[in-house]
Amino acid sequence: MALKDVIAGSRNEEGIAAVLGMLKQQFGDRFQKGQSFREQHTHTTTYLTPQLPDGVVFVESSADVGAVVKVCAAHRVPVIPFGTGSSLEAHLNAPSGGVSIDFSRMNRVLSVNAEDLDCTVEPGITREELNTYLRDTGLFFPIDPGANASIGGMAATRASGTNAVRYGTMKDNVLALTVIGADGEEIRTAHRARKSAAGYDLTRLYVGSEGTLGVITSVTLKLQGIPEKIGGGLCGFPSLKAACDAVIMTIQMGIPVARIELLDEMQIRACNLYSKLSLSEQPTLFVEFHGTDETVALQSAQFAEIVTEFGGDEFRWTVDAAERAQLWKARHNAYWASRALAPELSGLSTDVCVPISRLAECVAETQADIAETGFLAPIVGHAGDGNFHVLVLFDNKSPEDVVKAEAFTSRLTTRALSMDGTCTGEHGIGQGKISYLAQELPTALPVMRAIKRGLDPDDIFNPGKIFRL
Amino acid sequence: MALKDVIAGSRNEEGIAAVLGMLKQQFGDRFQKGQSFREQHTHTTTYLTPQLPDGVVFVESSADVGAVVKVCAAHRVPVIPFGTGSSLEAHLNAPSGGVSIDFSRMNRVLSVNAEDLDCTVEPGITREELNTYLRDTGLFFPIDPGANASIGGMAATRASGTNAVRYGTMKDNVLALTVIGADGEEIRTAHRARKSAAGYDLTRLYVGSEGTLGVITSVTLKLQGIPEKIGGGLCGFPSLKAACDAVIMTIQMGIPVARIELLDEMQIRACNLYSKLSLSEQPTLFVEFHGTDETVALQSAQFAEIVTEFGGDEFRWTVDAAERAQLWKARHNAYWASRALAPELSGLSTDVCVPISRLAECVAETQADIAETGFLAPIVGHAGDGNFHVLVLFDNKSPEDVVKAEAFTSRLTTRALSMDGTCTGEHGIGQGKISYLAQELPTALPVMRAIKRGLDPDDIFNPGKIFRL
Repeated sequence: MALKDVIAGSRNEEGIAAVLGMLKQQFGDRFQKGQSFREQHTHTTTYLTPQLPDGVVFVESSADVGAVVKVCAAHRVPVIPFGTGSSLEAHLNAPSGGVSIDFSRMNRVLSVNAEDLDCTVEPGITREELNTYLRDTGLFFPIDPGANASIGGMAATRASGTNAVRYGTMKDNVLALTVIGADGEEIRTAHRARKSAAGYDLTRLYVGSEGTLGVITSVTLKLQGIPEKIGGGLCGFPSLKAACDAVIMTIQMGIPVARIELLDEMQIRACNLYSKLSLSEQPTLFVEFHGTDETVALQSAQFAEIVTEFGGDEFRWTVDAAERAQLWKARHNAYWASRALAPELSGLSTDVCVPISRLAECVAETQADIAETGFLAPIVGHAGDGNFHVLVLFDNKSPEDVVKAEAFTSRLTTRALSMDGTCTGEHGIGQGKISYLAQELPTALPVMRAIKRGLDPDDIFNPGKIFRL
Repeated sequence: MALKDVIAGSRNEEGIAAVLGMLKQQFGDRFQKGQSFREQHTHTTTYLTPQLPDGVVFVESSADVGAVVKVCAAHRVPVIPFGTGSSLEAHLNAPSGGVSIDFSRMNRVLSVNAEDLDCTVEPGITREELNTYLRDTGLFFPIDPGANASIGGMAATRASGTNAVRYGTMKDNVLALTVIGADGEEIRTAHRARKSAAGYDLTRLYVGSEGTLGVITSVTLKLQGIPEKIGGGLCGFPSLKAACDAVIMTIQMGIPVARIELLDEMQIRACNLYSKLSLSEQPTLFVEFHGTDETVALQSAQFAEIVTEFGGDEFRWTVDAAERAQLWKARHNAYWASRALAPELSGLSTDVCVPISRLAECVAETQADIAETGFLAPIVGHAGDGNFHVLVLFDNKSPEDVVKAEAFTSRLTTRALSMDGTCTGEHGIGQGKISYLAQELPTALPVMRAIKRGLDPDDIFNPGKIFRL
């Protein structure tokens, strides 16, 4: 049993059969329709029931993608791009069947322009592969959503993560895209100039469109210089409010903190158990600074003053990589530590984001709500952005638990929206949050639908995601 | 005589007559159709021939805008939003006639959330009015396009300016918008959360859409803390290449320079004459740093090292406001200094942007081109972004000069595009650059047109801008 059982679309059986035959002929062994391939391509970290595609094409070029889209468009068969399968809201489900486009073989770096701090890559490359490739250039790509996701998938879902507070999200770090449109032809959204006022910002329209408007076939990214020094540390606070006030002050003072993560009491307890630590069980901030010896020391000193002002514990920090890893151990293992609280249960990872002035209030109300449900549900937040996740541990075989978990996430979303927040800071809508998007942006939905109809009139691109047409 | 005489659209006389009558009835004295009002609302800094609207409504609320759009939509009559009239590419022309919506009375600050570093304003407020309002909060809105433009106009044209290198452009600084769509109803594009992955990024679709997709009626902006200290300075370089290399190194080292402006030899000569200075006539960088005493000193020292490395003159800088103004005098007066080189001539302000690795080459080729034309045409660049402007001084009564100026801007654009640049870093497309956009993004244009048709099927929103349908 899964939460909110997903809605099946109508299948165009005749079209699908025709497309499968043609793709087999065209792609040979690079086309697969065995059960295991189909399962693999919806087996993600989502809590929603998988809906399998009818076949999988392993593409190797933008021309391949164009060919697949042309065949599918001619027969009105869905096309669903697949990166690494780390999305959380059933973005890869095939409610009306169709063809999964697997990008694992399109993972090359096409160019690096070190002087311009940019590179162009194929969408299948993962962020870790890219950073390994870049190491010798002294540059890196900062966005870190946790999972070793593909760059194409990260662009498609407007991913961010722990260091968005300093480096922004994918919307801020994609300079240009090539995309295959509904006619199977390639669209170039922009050139490499750092800024442009030339027409509609198609780059940012496709970023976050979750594959519903076209299929990304190359991504031009901004890069950053690898920091000379990274400083990291942590400190506990007497209350959630104190921790959040310290975050607000840090941001207001313009301290360019690279990461500032909030773990609540239950999360710290889980980390202590899992990683054999003895952190005080209180709201705790984990911070990281990027810069030179000089600037990291300066920023750490400024932050330490703020910590004192809000009654935090002594701020322990270091620029030694091994020590830093030790200090940050709790944060790094937070997810597995939470799961280990009750290994027999399933985990539902939520995702809301509120203005930071409301973060303490939103987290506190959510903790009270959790206490009433009786769930084990630790909280981790990208506090600098007001974004936080609750990992609800629940028994997905118990109808009662499922209903309760669903009701909890609905209340959490309503709470975040009432504080001028969003139902998703970084996980996206997929199938899982369609009703929440409608709740959040009711007047924007008709505009989104009009765009979808304009660019994908036959609804072949990842249908049934973001909204129902 | 003007450059590239603008193309008139077809006028829907019957609809226009009906709308003028209804608006008079509905808005009384807040509706005007006298010649002087009509002229005022296209009298901008553009070099293109004005095309007057048929009437002007002075709106006072989003509901007013909705009412105007409803009347105009019912009769298929164009609607053209007007902020302060500082756009450069004839964004405000009315090639098919229609109604200008004047926002000067919609200039209130609706809310300031100091802890969240954001505010929401009506679109008619100018950036200087906003910053005056904010002064006591310790916050400011950084984007500075030179002109005291309206925030709505800046959002609509994706404006930026001198400090985009640090703070980004309007696309990076607008959190949310309300927009009146083609049915006259209000659309809210996002909530106030710092980031969101909830559906298509409509905020950034409307930013830069130049009024062609709807009419903005409120803007939620990111704000910054007013820097404790501002340091400013300048230094000359032996060559354009050396100056640009210093810029590249500054950016690569991650020095968070707030402004880094390049003035070429001719611009410095003009400034010397106009402001009675005695700067050495060589490519010169003007820089500004924002921070604390400590960080400004640190950044200035790092920059000074870079200057030395590339053979620049001694880097003179100061944190004293009066001295800084003196050092930056040449930059502040650059436009008027250029115009004073030949007060009898007209000025054509161009705008291209290239990857910074190509900036020196692009500027040098452009200088050679200018020399061949015989024009006086100083160059000022927002070097950190690779964005530069040529102010071509030409006789707009001489057909020969007009043709020559036109040919020059066309070559400049082609040159920038060949270097992976854009035909406009910040001025936008309007009417003036329609052909250049088609040259720059040929495969993206059909997508833009499909979006336009989807959101504005009767083409009432600022028709004839960005592209021809």
